[in-house]
Amino acid sequence: MAEWEKIAADKRVRLEKTIPPEWKLKGIPDSDSFLVVPAQTGILSDAELAITESSATDLVAKLASGELKAVDVTLAFCKRAAIAHQLVNCSLEFFPELALAQARDLDVYWEQNKKPVGPLHGLPISLKDQFRVKGLETSMGYISWLNKYETDESVMVTLLRKAGAVFYVKTSVPQTLMCCETINNIIGRTLNPRNKNWSCGGSSGGEGAMVGGSIRVPSAFNFLYGIRPSHGRMPYARMANSMEGQETVHSVTGPIAHSAADIRLFLTSILSEEPWKYDSKVIPLEWRAHEEAIIKNKLQSGGLTIGFYNCDGVVLPHPPILRGVETVVSTLKKNGHEVVEWPPYKHDYAVDLISAIYTSDGGADVRRDISASGEPVISNITDLLDPSIQAVDMVQLWDVQLQKWRYQSEYLEKWREMEVKLGKELDAIIAPVTATAAVRHNQFRYYGYASAINLLDFTSVVVPVTFADKGVDVKNEGHAPFSEVDRLVQAEYDPEAYHGAPVAVQVIGRRLSEERTLAIAEEIGRLLGNVVTP
Amino acid sequence: MAEWEKIAADKRVRLEKTIPPEWKLKGIPDSDSFLVVPAQTGILSDAELAITESSATDLVAKLASGELKAVDVTLAFCKRAAIAHQLVNCSLEFFPELALAQARDLDVYWEQNKKPVGPLHGLPISLKDQFRVKGLETSMGYISWLNKYETDESVMVTLLRKAGAVFYVKTSVPQTLMCCETINNIIGRTLNPRNKNWSCGGSSGGEGAMVGGSIRVPSAFNFLYGIRPSHGRMPYARMANSMEGQETVHSVTGPIAHSAADIRLFLTSILSEEPWKYDSKVIPLEWRAHEEAIIKNKLQSGGLTIGFYNCDGVVLPHPPILRGVETVVSTLKKNGHEVVEWPPYKHDYAVDLISAIYTSDGGADVRRDISASGEPVISNITDLLDPSIQAVDMVQLWDVQLQKWRYQSEYLEKWREMEVKLGKELDAIIAPVTATAAVRHNQFRYYGYASAINLLDFTSVVVPVTFADKGVDVKNEGHAPFSEVDRLVQAEYDPEAYHGAPVAVQVIGRRLSEERTLAIAEEIGRLLGNVVTP
Repeated sequence: MAEWEKIAADKRVRLEKTIPPEWKLKGIPDSDSFLVVPAQTGILSDAELAITESSATDLVAKLASGELKAVDVTLAFCKRAAIAHQLVNCSLEFFPELALAQARDLDVYWEQNKKPVGPLHGLPISLKDQFRVKGLETSMGYISWLNKYETDESVMVTLLRKAGAVFYVKTSVPQTLMCCETINNIIGRTLNPRNKNWSCGGSSGGEGAMVGGSIRVPSAFNFLYGIRPSHGRMPYARMANSMEGQETVHSVTGPIAHSAADIRLFLTSILSEEPWKYDSKVIPLEWRAHEEAIIKNKLQSGGLTIGFYNCDGVVLPHPPILRGVETVVSTLKKNGHEVVEWPPYKHDYAVDLISAIYTSDGGADVRRDISASGEPVISNITDLLDPSIQAVDMVQLWDVQLQKWRYQSEYLEKWREMEVKLGKELDAIIAPVTATAAVRHNQFRYYGYASAINLLDFTSVVVPVTFADKGVDVKNEGHAPFSEVDRLVQAEYDPEAYHGAPVAVQVIGRRLSEERTLAIAEEIGRLLGNVVTP
Repeated sequence: MAEWEKIAADKRVRLEKTIPPEWKLKGIPDSDSFLVVPAQTGILSDAELAITESSATDLVAKLASGELKAVDVTLAFCKRAAIAHQLVNCSLEFFPELALAQARDLDVYWEQNKKPVGPLHGLPISLKDQFRVKGLETSMGYISWLNKYETDESVMVTLLRKAGAVFYVKTSVPQTLMCCETINNIIGRTLNPRNKNWSCGGSSGGEGAMVGGSIRVPSAFNFLYGIRPSHGRMPYARMANSMEGQETVHSVTGPIAHSAADIRLFLTSILSEEPWKYDSKVIPLEWRAHEEAIIKNKLQSGGLTIGFYNCDGVVLPHPPILRGVETVVSTLKKNGHEVVEWPPYKHDYAVDLISAIYTSDGGADVRRDISASGEPVISNITDLLDPSIQAVDMVQLWDVQLQKWRYQSEYLEKWREMEVKLGKELDAIIAPVTATAAVRHNQFRYYGYASAINLLDFTSVVVPVTFADKGVDVKNEGHAPFSEVDRLVQAEYDPEAYHGAPVAVQVIGRRLSEERTLAIAEEIGRLLGNVVTP
């Protein structure tokens, strides 16, 4: 056994031991879907099940009023996380004892003060294994990062803790974080709880599998809401990351949740802690209720004006995704909103540009952390480590950065031109998140629907829409592929294999438009009538 | 004559021709100071003199009401600019005919609509020769950039134009922009109108000489107010710049003016145009009157809490500057405000870090634009082009960027710690802008008082305080120099030569605190009772 295998095996043994015997499953069901399993194990009481199936908004209200105790809520979530991990392999750290100790402290605080410590008092929140927590490991999916225990914590962790959140689990991530399926050499692959043949998405795949979705892809693949805030809205300081210090396209943090309301709860709670006093990259911008009110006013009178595209001109989405976009468009129209076609502006250029940025060090950062342990490279990131990719120099980097800025500003110009043409504001753009519904393992090939929006640094909220349906979503035979990637993506579609897979759209707003874009996403979810259960 | 010299000579001839004969001076007075000259030439009528000595706030009010015509105001400013240029050599482009045509259009608009086109209707605004204006040259102080005429314009220019501003002159800049004295091989050196032996500062030196100050150093050297907004507050898109695409430490735009009120007028006017819809780097953050109100409330009750430092531990300021800081401190205390010592946190580290960033391409960008014409390098930037400086690679750049972010966040931590210690908010920090009062030519040696704040991306407002006084500001003999730079700076002090030179401080607030920091600067100016005349 190679040294890296020993380290990984040791980690798995340690992880296994964190699950108490009474939370162990007798066996793994033979079914493709595990969604109903947690309720059947008898490990959670009915009351505990109900807690884990409550919205975060409801839970914090009951915790704040004293109707629920933090310890009881935490215990319920720990049990459910233990079950989830055994089914779909979604955790890299599980620490129920620490969680329960934190919960007990919160209960003591409540008893003494008869009020919550903060807006998230007693709410269990799972953290992607990229957040640093004192005393725990942060693997980032690398063997070489194991056995190092954090002495400091991410600003987001500090602020969540101040707000009263309880931490109990760190969810799995792909080796490097740089792909949209969750697989590493530490614990292997994380499965989609709706169908073990599907990916849970990535890089926050463990999150997706746990709460049912890193931010947009896991949200989409697990029928969940998720927000990609623009850079600077949420703290990122002292997070672990691949290519740390790369600032050309910033990585961002944002919650995945069962509803737009729960996402709002998260964002408002963090903003109320004034994160800009902790992380220099955070913009001093409170939650702007007046921006939400603008959308609400439009809903009362005149309606929204929404653009949409169902194809970026690089890869044609699978039929379920095309139907997903069409469903949202027709629902909006039926409800009196104006919907206009949005011509995606040079998305092929954007996708090439962001790929060049992600490989601007020629893969040196990722290669260093992989080779430090001798572990093999997961197949999903071989493109990133293509030996023909050269690192760029400073002059080239500055040119790329200038191209990015110009492209962003040109995109804004297109947006303004559309508004002039319409004679009113364009409130948001509806688009696919991925080319496929929740994808089969090892079949995630095209990042462009998400990555072009990263390059623009626009705010994006994922709204779950529907599920692939083999009876409706017949294979598109007439399409001449745009490219080899497109051909591969089209070839992957199989109505039978994708039957039931979650379909989502993203609602895209300009940079730092979290309030408006979330309000629009919430309204779209309401109009769709999608009932989101864990 | 070398080719570059011919190009420069041709430019000077063309520039000379832009001044009509009736605005030509009969000769240049023999005095060191030119401050009183414009009133003595007879070129401006009393009414025109009064216009050029009005505040921008007054002018826009009169222009908006119709009491003044844009053409009359523009003509007055053009005359004064022509005189100023002949005295201190501050312009790289002068275009009175275009300005008057623009003014006439505005007057027509006013006649037809009986209202101003925007908040800056008819106000002449001078632009540093880094702003792109259609049809004009943008030299950036490089010979190689001459004879190229812009086909597009900077977003700031577009928005100022929409707001009603009139453009009439582009002011001189140092070759490369990268230094704090204004000298180039096109028109030579720009002088300080208060004393031709002193520098007008840089990089917006022509600005400083013109309105009496780029942003902080020219403001300080010319007894003017100036604001360095944090990155993302004001548009920068399509500006010319050295090292374009360098995004590790962003260059910013901001106004220089005679009062805090005029600075507010500029900022509110631009923000009212929603610059974030034009430039992707601008944050959608309107002018926050409620933030100003917080400062005003503190002034009514309890007073402000202000930190200060008079030395960053790297270079000791000259006696006039130390006295300037002390004057502000004692004035604040006398008026009931709490003033506490602020220990400058690792400014030596910050200064080294930002220097490494500014030379991260090993000088390639600057060297290219200088060598394109064969012109010689001005002596002020030889450090920047030191051949021993190597370009960094991507891994090193990311490390520097990570160091920067950590340093910024540590600085915020110090600020929070101070607030915990004080039990209240620390509203701002007072500090020197430069180590010297308006510096003698070729003696600008230390950028750290300004550049450390750039690295932090804090908001900073320059407030003029006093003037060097040979009777009071005796040479400090007891100081053991911190370093060779410090020794050189100390040796440069000569009470006689600096007698009368403007002394300023900067008022520093956290990132994106323009509203509060400007309000505090305005109050400090009011308490000092400094009367600022052009």
